[in-house]
Amino acid sequence: MDSFLLALDFGGTKHAAALLRPGEVSWVEKRQIRSPRSDASADMAVMLELAGELLSLNPGRLVAVGVSFGGPVDVDKGIVRLSHHIPGWENWPLRDDLLAELGAPVVVDNDANVGALGEWRFGAGQDCDSLLYMTVSTGIGGGWVLNGRPYRGVDNMAGEIGHTLVDPSGPLCVCGRYGCLEALASGLAIRDRALDRLEREPESGMILRRLGGEDLTTLTAETVSRAAHQGDGLALSVLLEAGEALGKGIGNALSLMNPQRVVLGGGVTQAGDAYWDAVRRAARRNTLPEIRSEIVPAALGSDSPLWGGIALVEALAGPFDNEIDRPG
Amino acid sequence: MDSFLLALDFGGTKHAAALLRPGEVSWVEKRQIRSPRSDASADMAVMLELAGELLSLNPGRLVAVGVSFGGPVDVDKGIVRLSHHIPGWENWPLRDDLLAELGAPVVVDNDANVGALGEWRFGAGQDCDSLLYMTVSTGIGGGWVLNGRPYRGVDNMAGEIGHTLVDPSGPLCVCGRYGCLEALASGLAIRDRALDRLEREPESGMILRRLGGEDLTTLTAETVSRAAHQGDGLALSVLLEAGEALGKGIGNALSLMNPQRVVLGGGVTQAGDAYWDAVRRAARRNTLPEIRSEIVPAALGSDSPLWGGIALVEALAGPFDNEIDRPG
Repeated sequence: MDSFLLALDFGGTKHAAALLRPGEVSWVEKRQIRSPRSDASADMAVMLELAGELLSLNPGRLVAVGVSFGGPVDVDKGIVRLSHHIPGWENWPLRDDLLAELGAPVVVDNDANVGALGEWRFGAGQDCDSLLYMTVSTGIGGGWVLNGRPYRGVDNMAGEIGHTLVDPSGPLCVCGRYGCLEALASGLAIRDRALDRLEREPESGMILRRLGGEDLTTLTAETVSRAAHQGDGLALSVLLEAGEALGKGIGNALSLMNPQRVVLGGGVTQAGDAYWDAVRRAARRNTLPEIRSEIVPAALGSDSPLWGGIALVEALAGPFDNEIDRPG
Repeated sequence: MDSFLLALDFGGTKHAAALLRPGEVSWVEKRQIRSPRSDASADMAVMLELAGELLSLNPGRLVAVGVSFGGPVDVDKGIVRLSHHIPGWENWPLRDDLLAELGAPVVVDNDANVGALGEWRFGAGQDCDSLLYMTVSTGIGGGWVLNGRPYRGVDNMAGEIGHTLVDPSGPLCVCGRYGCLEALASGLAIRDRALDRLEREPESGMILRRLGGEDLTTLTAETVSRAAHQGDGLALSVLLEAGEALGKGIGNALSLMNPQRVVLGGGVTQAGDAYWDAVRRAARRNTLPEIRSEIVPAALGSDSPLWGGIALVEALAGPFDNEIDRPG
């Protein structure tokens, strides 16, 4: 009988599930759908349906389930603390619910920690003893692998690089403070800064205005990035400012932890060479010359939480080169 | 025959040596002298004389030697990279020299890492799985214990919290950049800021001026602290600004790493309750509410590098509850 590992990714905008045979490095089957974004119960129902489909199409024994959740998680208890995007997730016992539904051991962690583990085990950090993984999209999150193990901090809150201070005179952050990295370098920050400058500079940003269409409030960081590539000066300067702020935040992490590598994922990091140059230059400038500054793109793209889910169950049980017995 | 562990501390202003019986928690004998501050050879000669005295007064078998050095060290090779205070230390093979002179295995690490280990094993971090130790004196250094092990980073440069960015509009740092924590919160920064304000505010700081004496350039952070205690408003505001900057830097470390505890040592941290309140308040304000912020004074004072030396040889060989055999 076939054996399978199942990876689940509860994301802010999409849910994904994938099946893997232990010891293999390509999915047997992967599915994703838009997340309902209505409430936690709808999220669960959609995910269980997705998982059920995969499992019924691929009959066999489910060995273990690794879960990435887009919000803070109590890993030891397997409880979701909350979702910043979707109501109803407060203190949800996700691990035990999935165990009851799927009949296999389950490990749950937040998306940044899981992404870090995925890139470390299967992606851009494969040969690293220590790495910082960052996801730069709507917000900014981070996760650590240190001494070859996931490092989560005493309250499982390590990696909150998005809320480190980069410039006290910077803009207001969603967390209520000023000048956090997230308020300067996230997708939302890029969008807000572009809108602000378009309003204050009516003669600039013509390409960006055209791409943005009638209703400029629908502008995204991706539009800013596209406009920059088409030669829009305002868009480019907004993008490079964000890249520079990101580099400064990374520089602080390098000074504090001296990791072997920093791996960057998330939509914003697809903004092209000029953006990456700004990030790397600012990081290099913002740390001592003796400290290495190796900053590379994530290799697994939007699949890093799924691969991380697999790495998560491996970390629990050891590599699945040979099938393990299902506990209890 | 008696067995001993030897701890050596090559400091910027003092050198110290202490003998301990394995498994005991008080020194058999401890000595310290002012460091010569002339060159590396003089440093070595003075330290070897100090160690020789201790050993000849206490005959027995030397089991191992743990060394704290005030500057960057290549731990694996036991080589001092340089001293920021004393010329001639560049690439000095300190471990092998001491092994040859003392005939026992030697471990060398920089003072911040060793201090972290000392406080974790014998001081204010005894029950912690993870801690950040910081020494706030002339400069600012830091060391980590994570998952119950020293964490040094890939180039042994982790813990450089003194050179994390706190305020881009801040003063010039010795490292050549602007707004580093060290440029805002170290003893030198406090002194420089006080001198600057005394010059610009001729009607203020009367107590500080009196304590400073004829030549204000001899002022130290300790004078500023004393003046603040005696009610000098200018001195107090300089001190609290430095405390607030330190808290911001600590806040960033809390957000990134979520350690169980932060332990603060070094002369500046003796500045009293108002200073500590400023540090703790700023750290608390500068991190997410879910992240704990437990900031306590070092328990071992200026002995933490010596106790750390003992912890260092323990980390190498396991606890010396029973005597170990001397390798080779």
